[in-house]
Amino acid sequence: MIYLDHAAATPMSDKALLAAEPYFKEQFFNPSSPYLPAKHVRDNYEFAKDQIAHTIGAKGVDLVITAGATESINLAFTAVEATKITGKAEVLILATEHTAVIAAAKSVCGRTGAVLRVVNVDRSGLIDLKDFQQKLGKNTVFVSVALANNELGAIQPLAEISQLVSKERERRLGAGQDLPLYLHSDASQALNVVDISVSRLGVDLLTINSAKIGGPKGVGALYVGHSVKLKPIVSGGGQELGLRSGTENVPGVMGFATAAEETKDHLGGNRKKYQKMVEIIKNELKKCQIEPIFLGNTKHQLANFCPVSFPGIDAERLIYLLEEQEVYVSTGAACAANKGTVSHVLKAIGLSDPEIAGSLRISLGILNTEENVKKAAILIREAVEKEALRTGLVKGETHAA
Amino acid sequence: MIYLDHAAATPMSDKALLAAEPYFKEQFFNPSSPYLPAKHVRDNYEFAKDQIAHTIGAKGVDLVITAGATESINLAFTAVEATKITGKAEVLILATEHTAVIAAAKSVCGRTGAVLRVVNVDRSGLIDLKDFQQKLGKNTVFVSVALANNELGAIQPLAEISQLVSKERERRLGAGQDLPLYLHSDASQALNVVDISVSRLGVDLLTINSAKIGGPKGVGALYVGHSVKLKPIVSGGGQELGLRSGTENVPGVMGFATAAEETKDHLGGNRKKYQKMVEIIKNELKKCQIEPIFLGNTKHQLANFCPVSFPGIDAERLIYLLEEQEVYVSTGAACAANKGTVSHVLKAIGLSDPEIAGSLRISLGILNTEENVKKAAILIREAVEKEALRTGLVKGETHAA
Repeated sequence: MIYLDHAAATPMSDKALLAAEPYFKEQFFNPSSPYLPAKHVRDNYEFAKDQIAHTIGAKGVDLVITAGATESINLAFTAVEATKITGKAEVLILATEHTAVIAAAKSVCGRTGAVLRVVNVDRSGLIDLKDFQQKLGKNTVFVSVALANNELGAIQPLAEISQLVSKERERRLGAGQDLPLYLHSDASQALNVVDISVSRLGVDLLTINSAKIGGPKGVGALYVGHSVKLKPIVSGGGQELGLRSGTENVPGVMGFATAAEETKDHLGGNRKKYQKMVEIIKNELKKCQIEPIFLGNTKHQLANFCPVSFPGIDAERLIYLLEEQEVYVSTGAACAANKGTVSHVLKAIGLSDPEIAGSLRISLGILNTEENVKKAAILIREAVEKEALRTGLVKGETHAA
Repeated sequence: MIYLDHAAATPMSDKALLAAEPYFKEQFFNPSSPYLPAKHVRDNYEFAKDQIAHTIGAKGVDLVITAGATESINLAFTAVEATKITGKAEVLILATEHTAVIAAAKSVCGRTGAVLRVVNVDRSGLIDLKDFQQKLGKNTVFVSVALANNELGAIQPLAEISQLVSKERERRLGAGQDLPLYLHSDASQALNVVDISVSRLGVDLLTINSAKIGGPKGVGALYVGHSVKLKPIVSGGGQELGLRSGTENVPGVMGFATAAEETKDHLGGNRKKYQKMVEIIKNELKKCQIEPIFLGNTKHQLANFCPVSFPGIDAERLIYLLEEQEVYVSTGAACAANKGTVSHVLKAIGLSDPEIAGSLRISLGILNTEENVKKAAILIREAVEKEALRTGLVKGETHAA
C-alpha cells in the first residue's frame, strides 16, 4: 500500500510503542497511589511531560495533558469563560480553522454571550493581516489561529499575529483597560515539520497532538502560559493542576513524549525529504492531461503537504479508483470527509465548486519513500486521466480493435 | 510484590493488550477516513463498542466513548444543563460519591443555578432510603448514586432507588409537570465483580471505566438512555454522535472491549475467588492485638473489597512499613490519598478520627492468589502490631537479650 494521508493519522513509531509498553502491564500503577512503585510511575510521567514540553520550548508544569487536540482546543477556549466579561466581548478565529476550533468557539460564545468574528484568508490560505488588524479591537478577548492548516498546510505568520496582539494589550494597559486578550494556536499539524517555540511564536496557549506525529491516539496536550486562567471542562480528583481530572493515561503520555522527541530530532532531515517527495509528485502530476492546481503557497506551507485540485474531476471517485490500487489519499479532513460536507477551508480560499470537488489532500510522512510517492503520483495521474476520459472532459483516441 | 490496590489501577490483561496491539501500528487509520482499510477500522471500532455495551445489557449506539470515568461522569451531569429549567432545580448525590461526582455536581450546579443536595448513608455506607425519599422532590432533575463505592465497596440498592425515581416521574406525568428526572450511576468499581444490566438497574446514565477491569488507561464510556439529552463538553468533528468529538482512540477501545468481555466471562468465578481471599485476610487480621473493624456490610459489598480500620494506628505509616515488604495497599482513593486529605467517605459513615486515620483499603484482583493474600495479611498484622508497640498502644514483652 501507499499511504498519502498522514494528516489524518500516523502509525505509532517503534520507539514510541516501546516507550509505552512497560506501562500497560508492569508499571501499571496509578501515579497518585502512595507506595514507591506508583511514585516511580509518577516521576516517569512528569519527566515525560517535561520531554513533550521541551520540544515546544516549555516546561512540563505548563502542559495540561488531554485526550487529544480536540479536547485541548475546547479547554483553551474556556479562557473566555474564565475571563470576567463586563461589556461586549469578541472571539476571533480564522476562516480556515479546524472544525474543532470552530465548534469550540461557537460553544464558548453560546455560553458567555461573546461574539464570534471570522478573519479572512487569501487564496493561498494565509491570514489577511489587514482584516485581522481591523477586527482585533478593544473587545477582543481571544484569538485562535492554527499554526498550520490541516487541509492546505498553510503556515500562518504567528509571530506577526502575536505582535499585533501584544500591541493591543499594551494599548489596553496604557488606557487602564483590564480586559485580557489571549492568543491560542492549534499546532496539531505543524508539530511534525515545524520547529516550534512558544515564546518565539508569542502564544499564550498552544494545542499539540500525539496521533499526528507517530505517537498513540487519544493523547494530546495544551500549553498554558503563566498568565492564563482556564476553567476545567472535566472536574474531579484534581489531576493536571486541577485543569483536567481523571487517572493519568501513563502509557499514552510515555509514547507521546518519545514520539515528540523523535520528531524534533528529525525535523530538518524530514523537511528536506518531504520537500523532495512533493517535487516528485508535482512533476508527475504536471504531465496530466487535466492541468492540476497546486493549492497554497509553497513558501508558507508544511513541507509534507501537497494539496491539489483537478477542476472538473470528482475527487471522491479518484479516491475509490486509487483505493483499488492500494493508494490511500483523502479529499480533506477525515472528520469532514466522513460527513460528505464541502470543505469550508477550500471555500474560504475562494475555490470554485468544480475546483473544490476536484481536490485531493496529499500529506506525506513516515510511510513514504521517493519510490512510493513517484508510483502513487503516476497512479493518481492515470486515475485523473481515466476519469477525464469517462466524463468526456478530454477526448479519447480511437482504439484499434 | 503483593498488590492489594486493584481499586486504584489494574494491569492490562494479556488478551486486552493483544486486542489493542494491531491498532497501534498496522491498523492505525483514522476511522473517519474514506478508504477501505480505514472503513475496516471503523467497523472494528463500532463492533468493539457493541461488545462493551453488551456487557451492561446495552447497544453500541447507546455508548459515548470518553477518556475515562471522570469524563463520563462530567458528561453525564450535562443532562442538568440540557434540561430547560424554568424554576428551582435540584441535584441529588450520595454523601459517599467519588470526588469526580462531587466535583461534576458542584460544577453543573454552579453553571445552572441548580441546588446540590446530599443524601445520607448509614454506618456501612449504604444509602439512607428514607432520607433519599425525603429529598427526592418535585424539583429534582438529576440523581447520581454509585453502584458501588470506591473506598468501601458498598453496593447500593440501585433497583430500589430507580423505582422511587420512576414513581416521582409518574407523579409528574399525572400532574402535567414536564421537568425531567435522570438517574446516573458510576459503576467504575462495580463492573469488575457485579453483573450489570442497565435495564435491570433502571438507570438512564451509567459510567464505566476500562482501567479498573484490566483494560487500558485513558478510556471509559457513558451509557446514555434513549430519552436523555446531553450537552457535549468536547465539541468538534462530531464523533460519538456529536457528544464527544476527537479522533477515536481505536486501540484503547479494542482493549477495553476485550477486557470487558473477559471480566463478564469470569464474573461468577472471580466473585467466589475473591470472597474466599477476603475471608483468609479477615481470619488473619482478627488475630491482631489491635482489634480490626471491618468496614461496610459484607452482604452488600463488592466481593474483592476488604476495607478495615485499626483504631489508634496511623495507616499512612502502615503503608510505608508494608511498602518495605513489597506489599502495596492504600488508605483510600488514590487521588485523595495523594492530596493528604481526610476521606469524606469514611467521615460520611460516621467513623471517629482515630478510626479514619487507621483505615486501609484492601482491594483484590487479578494479581492475587490465596497464598499471596495470606502472606500479605500476616505482614499487615505484624506491621499493625509493630506500630501498636512503638506508639505504646500495647505493652511489649520484655526481651530476653
